[in-house]
Amino acid sequence: MSIKPILYENNVLKMIDQRLLPVEELWLEYTDYRAVAEAIKTMVVRGAPAIGVAAAFGAAFGAREIVAESYEAFSVEFEKVCAVLGATRPTAVNLFWALDRMKRCADAHRTLSLAGLKARLIGEAMEIAAEDLRLNRTLGKNGAELIPDNARVLTHCNAGALATGGYGTALGVIRAAVEAGKKVAVIADETRPWLQGARLTAWELQRDNIPVTLICDNMAGHLMSKGEIDCVIVGADRIAANGDTANKIGTYTVAVLAREHGLPFYVAAPISTIDLAIPDGSHIPIEERDRREVTHSGERQLAPEGVAVRNPAFDVTPARLITAIITERGVARGNYGVELKKLATKDK
Amino acid sequence: MSIKPILYENNVLKMIDQRLLPVEELWLEYTDYRAVAEAIKTMVVRGAPAIGVAAAFGAAFGAREIVAESYEAFSVEFEKVCAVLGATRPTAVNLFWALDRMKRCADAHRTLSLAGLKARLIGEAMEIAAEDLRLNRTLGKNGAELIPDNARVLTHCNAGALATGGYGTALGVIRAAVEAGKKVAVIADETRPWLQGARLTAWELQRDNIPVTLICDNMAGHLMSKGEIDCVIVGADRIAANGDTANKIGTYTVAVLAREHGLPFYVAAPISTIDLAIPDGSHIPIEERDRREVTHSGERQLAPEGVAVRNPAFDVTPARLITAIITERGVARGNYGVELKKLATKDK
Repeated sequence: MSIKPILYENNVLKMIDQRLLPVEELWLEYTDYRAVAEAIKTMVVRGAPAIGVAAAFGAAFGAREIVAESYEAFSVEFEKVCAVLGATRPTAVNLFWALDRMKRCADAHRTLSLAGLKARLIGEAMEIAAEDLRLNRTLGKNGAELIPDNARVLTHCNAGALATGGYGTALGVIRAAVEAGKKVAVIADETRPWLQGARLTAWELQRDNIPVTLICDNMAGHLMSKGEIDCVIVGADRIAANGDTANKIGTYTVAVLAREHGLPFYVAAPISTIDLAIPDGSHIPIEERDRREVTHSGERQLAPEGVAVRNPAFDVTPARLITAIITERGVARGNYGVELKKLATKDK
Repeated sequence: MSIKPILYENNVLKMIDQRLLPVEELWLEYTDYRAVAEAIKTMVVRGAPAIGVAAAFGAAFGAREIVAESYEAFSVEFEKVCAVLGATRPTAVNLFWALDRMKRCADAHRTLSLAGLKARLIGEAMEIAAEDLRLNRTLGKNGAELIPDNARVLTHCNAGALATGGYGTALGVIRAAVEAGKKVAVIADETRPWLQGARLTAWELQRDNIPVTLICDNMAGHLMSKGEIDCVIVGADRIAANGDTANKIGTYTVAVLAREHGLPFYVAAPISTIDLAIPDGSHIPIEERDRREVTHSGERQLAPEGVAVRNPAFDVTPARLITAIITERGVARGNYGVELKKLATKDK
């Protein structure tokens, strides 16, 4: 059973501190929405779907605090709560998707008592978490058939159980392939600067006894040129209507390399990652994070003081480099402008 | 004046410890060839031309210890010394080039007294060091015309003063362009796992007041796609007769990205880096280094214990991706099978 990084028990949200893995497994507890926002911002929790789940609980916690005489008064305060949670990280659309869903839920239950409404919002967050786990299993099955037996699969960053409500998207596909009896070996890009690959992907695959080999990001091209990689699968933080996909910085490079070597490049992501409101990837805001992520490793200084640094946390892979986009509602293989809309608006 | 990482003064070889930069500037002193071999192996000194220079002094120090009645007896011992130095790192051909040159020098002076021969070998090592500095200046001038004014130049690893007898190859070209009055901004790949870009390139360019921006290796593709890079220049550890070039791991990926974005990709290296004895890059041995370089940063553990790791230190960029190879004897632009031979056998 793969790890679930976000648990809701006895009115408390528990999240494993992903900043400390793999050296320490520390669970932090949250009951305050501001603390949840801070946890998203500082990457206690990360990964687009997991951010969505955490934000949903944050919104429910924020609602719990509101004292209001009417739904309208409640709604004004609830908007403020959601704005705080929405201001944490700009790229992953699941954050905004989850907050929108919480707001729609509140609206749909505006006639409830305040206590009833608050309980319903907690219920909605629990539902979002449970759904995410379920849909990852379905997504995994949908994608598993794309993974050949004995495949050596490159992945970048962590689109695993730790990035979701559990099971994972890209790693969910790998888990489903393994559960279907296939032999799969994973090559994990370490994923600088935050090292999600080294710290998280390697850790959770090792824990599930799925063979994993860690490499530095700049080694993937070499391994491809030596015929040591069969396909690539990654997650996504936001997919534009035309299929352009924002994901962890370095994903674009992997996609270019895959194309150069004639390897399939798959994106695995839930429908909630698709942002039909933007026509293409140029509209996706790219977060620039703190320079210290690049210049230091823990307390260790890696670069001369005062050096200029760029630290974009994401990049955009154009749709033309993507072999297929795997979702819980099916697999789109090209012609994304049409296919993604079909999937996104399909009845569940 | 750019730094010279290798100094010979008062019969002592002094090398700046490149493992400690940029945090500490420690000069280590060497008089024993075994210690020089260890310094090459453990990367106190690194960079193909610098390794050649260090190995030449190592050979001269080894010769200094030999007690022999005849040149033949000397030669047997000298071979052993050179074998120890040659067993340190397999990829950079300059190491073997320098050792061969020291052996040829010994042969050419076989009629000298033992004391005279030993002095001559020290002289030859000093000559190799001085030549390297001179040729880098010439190489730099040859390459400078390829760098446009206001260019934003990506480099990978450190092919700078620290990688050579001084001035640098790839960074020598940049220094020469700057000296010619051009405005050049360097984007430095940090170059995992050893971080030559973050630790060395950023440090030596900052010291020379050449603008430098540090990025993680996986960000170069993103910056290229945004139109923020104009060309790429790197060094080389070994160039096969057909132009295939071994250089620091990740170079191949940068070359693929440059081609994808229509950017020139330049290799700057002295003639001693060209290995006409091998037809193509498949014959270049690729060093695999210790897993700890990937799993740890200093004492900090970055990955779960026991995870499988690959750590190839170099990769091979096929000639077809290289726009030009810049040497001290001129610039080869394609048709490398013919052009490199011409340059390598040209009168100095």
